[in-house]
Amino acid sequence: MLQPGQILGILGGGQLGRMLALAAAPLGLRVHVFSPDADSPAFDVAAARTVAAYEDEAALMRFAESVDLVTFEFENVPGRTAEIVGARAPLHPNPRALATTQDRLVEKSFVSDIGIATAPFREVSSESDLVRALSSLGRPAVLKTRRFGYDGKGQVLVRDGDDPARAWAAVAGAPCILEGFVPFEREVSVVAARTPEGAFAAYDLCANEHRSHILDITRVPAGVSQATEEAAFAIARRIADALDYAGVLAVEMFLVREGSEERLVVNEIAPRVHNSGHWTIEGAETSQFEQHVRAVCGWALGSTRRRGRAEMRNLIGDDVTDWPRILAEPGAHLHLYGKAEARPGRKMGHVTRVTPEEA
Amino acid sequence: MLQPGQILGILGGGQLGRMLALAAAPLGLRVHVFSPDADSPAFDVAAARTVAAYEDEAALMRFAESVDLVTFEFENVPGRTAEIVGARAPLHPNPRALATTQDRLVEKSFVSDIGIATAPFREVSSESDLVRALSSLGRPAVLKTRRFGYDGKGQVLVRDGDDPARAWAAVAGAPCILEGFVPFEREVSVVAARTPEGAFAAYDLCANEHRSHILDITRVPAGVSQATEEAAFAIARRIADALDYAGVLAVEMFLVREGSEERLVVNEIAPRVHNSGHWTIEGAETSQFEQHVRAVCGWALGSTRRRGRAEMRNLIGDDVTDWPRILAEPGAHLHLYGKAEARPGRKMGHVTRVTPEEA
Repeated sequence: MLQPGQILGILGGGQLGRMLALAAAPLGLRVHVFSPDADSPAFDVAAARTVAAYEDEAALMRFAESVDLVTFEFENVPGRTAEIVGARAPLHPNPRALATTQDRLVEKSFVSDIGIATAPFREVSSESDLVRALSSLGRPAVLKTRRFGYDGKGQVLVRDGDDPARAWAAVAGAPCILEGFVPFEREVSVVAARTPEGAFAAYDLCANEHRSHILDITRVPAGVSQATEEAAFAIARRIADALDYAGVLAVEMFLVREGSEERLVVNEIAPRVHNSGHWTIEGAETSQFEQHVRAVCGWALGSTRRRGRAEMRNLIGDDVTDWPRILAEPGAHLHLYGKAEARPGRKMGHVTRVTPEEA
Repeated sequence: MLQPGQILGILGGGQLGRMLALAAAPLGLRVHVFSPDADSPAFDVAAARTVAAYEDEAALMRFAESVDLVTFEFENVPGRTAEIVGARAPLHPNPRALATTQDRLVEKSFVSDIGIATAPFREVSSESDLVRALSSLGRPAVLKTRRFGYDGKGQVLVRDGDDPARAWAAVAGAPCILEGFVPFEREVSVVAARTPEGAFAAYDLCANEHRSHILDITRVPAGVSQATEEAAFAIARRIADALDYAGVLAVEMFLVREGSEERLVVNEIAPRVHNSGHWTIEGAETSQFEQHVRAVCGWALGSTRRRGRAEMRNLIGDDVTDWPRILAEPGAHLHLYGKAEARPGRKMGHVTRVTPEEA
């Protein structure tokens, strides 16, 4: 169990690492951020910084030996990086959670193996695999690289009449899975925390809307039945328990409506704080960032009680030029990530609005 | 007007500077902290640090030239320091606010001159001044050094029968004022912000309880009449306007009850964020720290709407060992300042509890 005054290491220096560091400080922790990018947003709020590649073993060793516990802000931490760090400092979430979630085939197999519904899927390692998988799962279907996909990157939709060879060329021969079509009404996510001792706390279910494959808006409450919300929490808890997880995780799910019945299909697990949980900074008693720090440190989890109806909108690319208007809007909470260049599709910040429950 | 991405300089590296830096980051600002103390709590969350004395003119010039705007977290910034910095970067609040509030005699004269009630006071520069002032103001009275007093430091109570020579020796010949006794029911404070253009917003009145001359508990609402609360806001606004103030300021006042009437007497002005405003981090729509940053940057002020009944308790000295219990209490918000040594009387952190208005 960590003590205030000790040092929390964070692998990754993006906005998630930045918001983790901002949450760790009031808990009395000093933060050391490790990132290959000298311009990392998290560096601006960290007590110590290492600029080095994730493959720089000497730098990793120095980093791990200078901190009291390590966590990460992204799931693509290389296995060897986790191994080097984990041998020198406690690493939460654990390497198993990393290995399971950074490969879509391993992840979907894991979820399915513990009895939770996923989209139908097939391993695809060749064009002929793809052809076979398409005839088995039908169309439309989505060909996804097993690794390094996010915000719609590494995904190709294959519709009726599309040439499988073209899809296969688009992923450049990377190991893939093909996922069958799920006729979902919308996407929801559970953001939850588990401690090393197995305590578990979930935030209210989040309803997510995407624009060009990037999360656009999260709304809470999600407007699903209580039974569905409880089913979603149970799924997240089963996943966290099976991974012996410590920290915050997010489970993205498809909500499928069949008549009056709501059914959940797990799409993806993020072993970290998650964009769909940003509303918790103002919208919940404890933010997901503070909750993650509490969980990895082995401390009591905070209350996940909601403070009202919350809506979080990402500021993507030029959306960020809207900041003066947002600042002038009563009750709108602006969060900028300190990124210099507003490239299209780049998450530059977000804005959260919380309104009383009665409204 | 500052832009996100620009650099905010902060003179002073204590907990107030730390919480200012934590609030500046989500607004997209980079923070550069200047402090003589290498162990400054604010350094841990700042993008850049200067460790140098406030008298180090070369370091001050480099600092001021490397930032886009400067503010401070304590009122005892030396005049020459403010002059050097202010010549090279916009400085808010302005040097006049600093000069007025860092000398109790100047401050009380200023307040009194703009028609606001203070305790009766006399300038005391010698033992014979003190004897004269005591016979004029009566006893009990409080002898206070004009400069560098905080948390009861530099103050001597003179009661019936006390030897004036002893009191004069206790302040070691420093320039002083003697303040007459105010039979106050309790102490309240207004925490408010003013922009360079004169926009003004106050938080609900704070009721403050002290222990050994150090703020112990702040409760909001203060439980005074609406007329008194409005009178308090009007006093704070008159002071801020008269100083052409930009930023958050706190005005400490005594509440005197005369029969059914409530009367306010200004005790002290703090030209900065204030301990009695810490409850705003969770208890108000916009924290005093974000509000200060907005105000000094020339941005729109945020909403000061309260989220419920708030109580802030300081964690002083060994109180801080209570952190695990506080973390385990639902709805209690822990703030630790990252100070290594828990000396008696040292502010190590605070805890805020916000409960629904109905409770």
